[in-house]
Order: sequence, then C-alpha cells, then structure tokens
Amino acid sequence: MSVTAAAGFEAAGVAAGLKSSGAEDLALVVNRGPLQNAAAVFTSNRAKANPIIWSQQVIADGVANAIVLNSGGANCFTGAQGFQTTHATAEAVAESLSLSAGDVLVCSTGLIGDQLDRDKLLAGVSAAAEALGTDGGDAAARAIMTTDSKPKTAVRSLEGWTIGGMAKGAGMLAPGLATMLVVITTDAVVSSNELDAHLRSATRVSFDRLDSDGCMSTNDQVTLFASGASGVSPTPSAFVAALTELCLDLAEQLQGDAEGASHDIAIRVVGAATEDDAVEVGRSVARNNLFKAAVFGNDPNWGRVLAAIGTTAAAFDPYVVDVSMNGVMVCSNGGPDQPRDLVDLTDRAVDVLIDLKEGDASATILTNDLTHDYVHENSAYSS
Amino acid sequence: MSVTAAAGFEAAGVAAGLKSSGAEDLALVVNRGPLQNAAAVFTSNRAKANPIIWSQQVIADGVANAIVLNSGGANCFTGAQGFQTTHATAEAVAESLSLSAGDVLVCSTGLIGDQLDRDKLLAGVSAAAEALGTDGGDAAARAIMTTDSKPKTAVRSLEGWTIGGMAKGAGMLAPGLATMLVVITTDAVVSSNELDAHLRSATRVSFDRLDSDGCMSTNDQVTLFASGASGVSPTPSAFVAALTELCLDLAEQLQGDAEGASHDIAIRVVGAATEDDAVEVGRSVARNNLFKAAVFGNDPNWGRVLAAIGTTAAAFDPYVVDVSMNGVMVCSNGGPDQPRDLVDLTDRAVDVLIDLKEGDASATILTNDLTHDYVHENSAYSS
Repeated sequence: MSVTAAAGFEAAGVAAGLKSSGAEDLALVVNRGPLQNAAAVFTSNRAKANPIIWSQQVIADGVANAIVLNSGGANCFTGAQGFQTTHATAEAVAESLSLSAGDVLVCSTGLIGDQLDRDKLLAGVSAAAEALGTDGGDAAARAIMTTDSKPKTAVRSLEGWTIGGMAKGAGMLAPGLATMLVVITTDAVVSSNELDAHLRSATRVSFDRLDSDGCMSTNDQVTLFASGASGVSPTPSAFVAALTELCLDLAEQLQGDAEGASHDIAIRVVGAATEDDAVEVGRSVARNNLFKAAVFGNDPNWGRVLAAIGTTAAAFDPYVVDVSMNGVMVCSNGGPDQPRDLVDLTDRAVDVLIDLKEGDASATILTNDLTHDYVHENSAYSS
Repeated sequence: MSVTAAAGFEAAGVAAGLKSSGAEDLALVVNRGPLQNAAAVFTSNRAKANPIIWSQQVIADGVANAIVLNSGGANCFTGAQGFQTTHATAEAVAESLSLSAGDVLVCSTGLIGDQLDRDKLLAGVSAAAEALGTDGGDAAARAIMTTDSKPKTAVRSLEGWTIGGMAKGAGMLAPGLATMLVVITTDAVVSSNELDAHLRSATRVSFDRLDSDGCMSTNDQVTLFASGASGVSPTPSAFVAALTELCLDLAEQLQGDAEGASHDIAIRVVGAATEDDAVEVGRSVARNNLFKAAVFGNDPNWGRVLAAIGTTAAAFDPYVVDVSMNGVMVCSNGGPDQPRDLVDLTDRAVDVLIDLKEGDASATILTNDLTHDYVHENSAYSS
C-alpha cells in the first residue's frame, strides 16, 4: 500500500520507456486533501540535480499537491536543458491534474550526466495521471527502483490515523541531510511547520545514520505529505515516534538491499562524550574499506576498527576503548581480549559495539560490507 | 642499493621467523657517521602502534644511530606487553652495536592486535647485527615487505653526494602526515633541524598526496638519516629537490603495487582557490568507491567525480567545473561535453583533470581503482 495507505492519497506507477528494460519507471503521488501540507529534506551534496533545485523552491512555502518521480536518469549535470526538462515535467503534472506547477515536486534517479528523453517523460506523466488510484501505492514503489532488487514500503496505522511510505536506494547511500528517494504520506492533521520539524527529527536518527558506501548522492530527497483526511491530530510525540519508526524501517530495508552486500552491519557506539562524537566514530568505521572487506571475509579484524576511529577528532583514548563483535569482546582497554576466532560472522547481521568510555552519548550507524558483487555492480553501472 | 647507496650506512635483512612463510622479516639500518643526524614524520592516526610511540621519543633530539624494522606483526593495540617488546628490541640493537637504546628507532608492520614473538625478534636482531654490510640495502628492502609484491627502492646521486631509500606499503595507504614504512639515507652534510624541515616539505607533496584506499595506518613512519660521510653540503634547495623527487618515486612505486589495483589514477586539480582546496577535492574523488569501481570497469563515469567533489567545502561552483579523463573533456561547465565512449581507460595509468575555475592553486592526488582483487586480498588478510 505504501503511499496510498493513508487516506487522501492517490498514486500510480507506469512504464514511460526511460528504462531500457521496459519496467515501470515513472511514479506519481497526489494529495487530495483536505490539507496540502508538506515538508522535504534534501541532499547536502553541493552538486545538486535539477529536480532538487526545483523541489527546494516548491517546498519553500510548506505546500505541495503532488510529487512525480522518475527512474532511468538522474537529470544531474545536464545544464539548462536538464532544468527545462524538470520544469516541463512539473508543468505536465499540473496540466493533467489542474494544479499549479509551483506545487509539484519532482525527483529523478539514475545515471548522472545524461539528458532524459523529454517526450517519453511527458507522455509517461499523462499515462500516470490517467492511472491514479487509491490502490496505486505498490506500482509507484516499483516505478522508483533502479538497482534495487525489490520495492521498499512501510505502513503504520495508529489511533485513527495512518502513515505510510516508499523508498528507493541501493547504492550511493551516505546521506548528508536526507538520502535517497523517499515519499511518506499521512492522513493525520499536521501543519507544515510541524511536518518540517518532525521530518528533520526523524531523518536525523534514521536515514542520516545509514552509510552503506560513503558516497553521497546528488538526488536525495525525503518528502512528507499530510492530507489531514483522518481528521485526527496526533500529539507531536506520537507523530514523531511513528514517523521515526517508519523511517528506520525504510532505512533498514535500504541497508538490506544495498548493492552487492552480504552483511548488514550495525555499528553501535556507546560511552561517547557527545552524540556527534558517537556518529563521527561510527561513520569512520562504516567508511573503512579494509574493515568492510574483512567482514565480507567473515574476519573479525578489530584492529581495523581501532585504526578507523583513530582518524577521528572525537574525544576518546584509544588505549581504553573496548570493542565487541557479535557479542564477543575482542578488545578491552585497547588490547586483545577474547580470541578473534570465537566471533562468528557467517550471519548477514553483524553487530559491532564500541565503548569509548568518555560519557553517556551513543549512536548507531548502519552500513554494509565491501564485496565482489559491490565492485561488479558499480564497475558496470553505466554500461 | 637503497639505503646503503649513500656512504656511511650499513644494512641487513634476515629471516627471524615472524613471517610464517620463512621470508626475510627483519631489517636493520645503521648510520656509521660521522654525523648522526636524523628526522622522522609519523602517522597522524591517534591510534598509534607501540613502535611509533617509542620512535617519537627517540627522534625528539634529532639524533639516531640505527633503525630496526620488522614485518610479520604491527605491534599495535598490544598493551604494556607490546611496548615492552618494542623497548627490548631497541635494547637488543643497542647491545649488539654498542649504542644507546635511546638512539635506536623501531618500526613494525603487519596485523594489528597480535603480540610479536619476542624471542624470535631478539634472535633476529642478533643475526641482523652480524649480517650488517654496505651491500645490505636490498635485503633490508625485502625484509620490510608485507603484501608488497616487490621491494621499493630509489637512489639519486648528485654532485658528490647521494640519497637513497626503501619503502614498504601495499594497503592502508592514506597518510595523514607521513605514511607507510620508509627509510631514507644520505651522506650529505645536513643538520637535524634542516633534515626535519626538508623531510616535512618533501613528504607533504609526495606521500601525503598518495591515497590508495582512504585507510590510514597506525604504524606509518618515514625516517631520514644523514651521515655526512660525503663531506658535501648541498644547498637547501638542491637537497629538497632531490629528496622530493626520491619521495615521489617511492610514492609512485607504492601506488603501482597497491593491493589488487588494476589502475594507477592521478587526480589533478587545477584552478583551485587554495592548495588545501585542491587537495581536499582530489582526496574526495580518490576516496569515492563508486568512482574507483567505475575506473576498474573502464567506465568514464564523470558524474561520480562531480558527486564526490560536491561533498567538499572547497570554493567552487559545481556548474562551472570542467572534467577531463585521459585527455577527453567529458564535462564542461558542469554539463556533458564529449561523449564518454571517447575515453579509453584500458591502460593502467588514468589521468583525471578537474578545473575548478576559482584560482591558480593546484595539487595532484595519486590513488587506485577498487577491484575484485582488493576485496579478495583484504577479506583474507588475517586468515
């Protein structure tokens, strides 16, 4: 159901011909109201795709009626022609649905540096507008896939209101502010300002903590729409809790489908002086290719964990740190503890626990291992 | 000849039994004077191995008589026992050669987190002291190898004086200040203070610009000895020029032998506002796994170059940047220029030229591609 689980939303996913495979590649999600509140967070990469530049303008007033998303091309570094394509896409949605183009968000995903086929794209918009329905959420979730092996959706139904979402992403997973393409809808009654605050709060501890390969996309966008169709106004804490849980669910689905990965690694940093320190330490390990390759080889090479965190500016003494892997304390006080061959890394889920012994702050970073399949998929992407 | 090309130096390389293969694993280099001047630069990783902690104390006064280096174990995160092993190694060298232990530098390389076999190590020191000779440079260069496929040496003979060196390193190649294990000797007459300044000047634009895999070692050390045995005092500019050229030669040998690499990539950044900006931009590309995997696949995926530099804080406008690969301008002013299939990436050497169009500063970062063999070698290192 994804984005159509909440009342007030219609969606569609169609094949516009942008993907050479002929699969669905254009999704449209429309908020039928009564509210038209929306918020979005965007990649912090300074190299922003044309749809990001467009959508940042659209969302500025906290109102959006619809979002159109295409796979089969990122429309990034495509110059003025590329921006005109984004603009024309929003205009086509607006014309089909009797909206203002200034209230239509646009997202694109795929290869950077190639022009989208504008004719196919605009014909796809017409077809999607025809196909809109309250059962269109699953087709929309399929249409935004690129190298994803499966669609990613999540729904939470609470006391009289619902929140649902869809996500795509399998590589270039290292958000700066937001990440990947995600559309979340709710029928709760929430103002635009609240949506914005709640979305930033939820993404900060979910998508922002996912760092599959250290590579930040040019096209990341997480959008949250509220239709108010349930008539229910949840408390801010209840809404944030449900939204955060939904975002973590989608983030874990992204991690689980990361390109070529054979392990999902959760790096839990505890005892940090600050939460920022915990995030920096966790991210340094998540980005260490030697550690990630070792996990692929089922090798509990904890020295690479310490070598990674030694590159950070976080408060800690390397010679008092403890490191456990899958429950086995392999390093205590910066020296060897249990034998490394007690650690079993054959399961897909890997838990690394790092105790900095500096304070009470903590954070968990989600990442993946570095595998032959990752190299293979990313050495052949544009061919 | 490596470290024994310059007059006044003796060296040896012996098999102490630290490597299970039985290959040479312990090197000793001695400065017979008349001068005993030395300088060293060390990893900036806060997680420092025991020999680094020891050697930083030894070099503080600018005097050192000898350096002993072992492969087969990094002696890092091995606690008090590990530090005692380093100390005992220096004592054994001092006793064999009638020196003070406080003038003996120690380097170790290999797996982090395992204790070295102290008995084997000390017996190896005795054997190396027996084997010292002015023809020992090549054996010493072999003895410091870990996953290196070949020894790395370089020599420059100038007007009456000589400078030579050896290096080891094939992975974890991303220096912070210095990198890897490097020993350089000269028979020029140079004071300790000058050696220190010249070494920092040379490493800043050589080893510091090599970033094979973004992973900084815990054991990196570059040491420079001057014996003064030639009696020649070169001008500072002549000495720095020769030293820098020698360091670049060794850095390129390290790049060319990086674990599993199939391409040597030079990322030249021009038109930067500052040299720091140029280095930051070049390093962001050198650490982008998606770009590195694309080069492995002979795919000139320039969008990944721009996505990488978009994550930096350097002064530039992504929409005016030019990118060329192997002489083909694939991106001009942030948009597509020549077709990407004009770029031929089949040779090992790859040249990426990025023009930020902000100023006159430039820098070149050396890196490698991300390959199946890199994943393979680093998933099986400790097994």
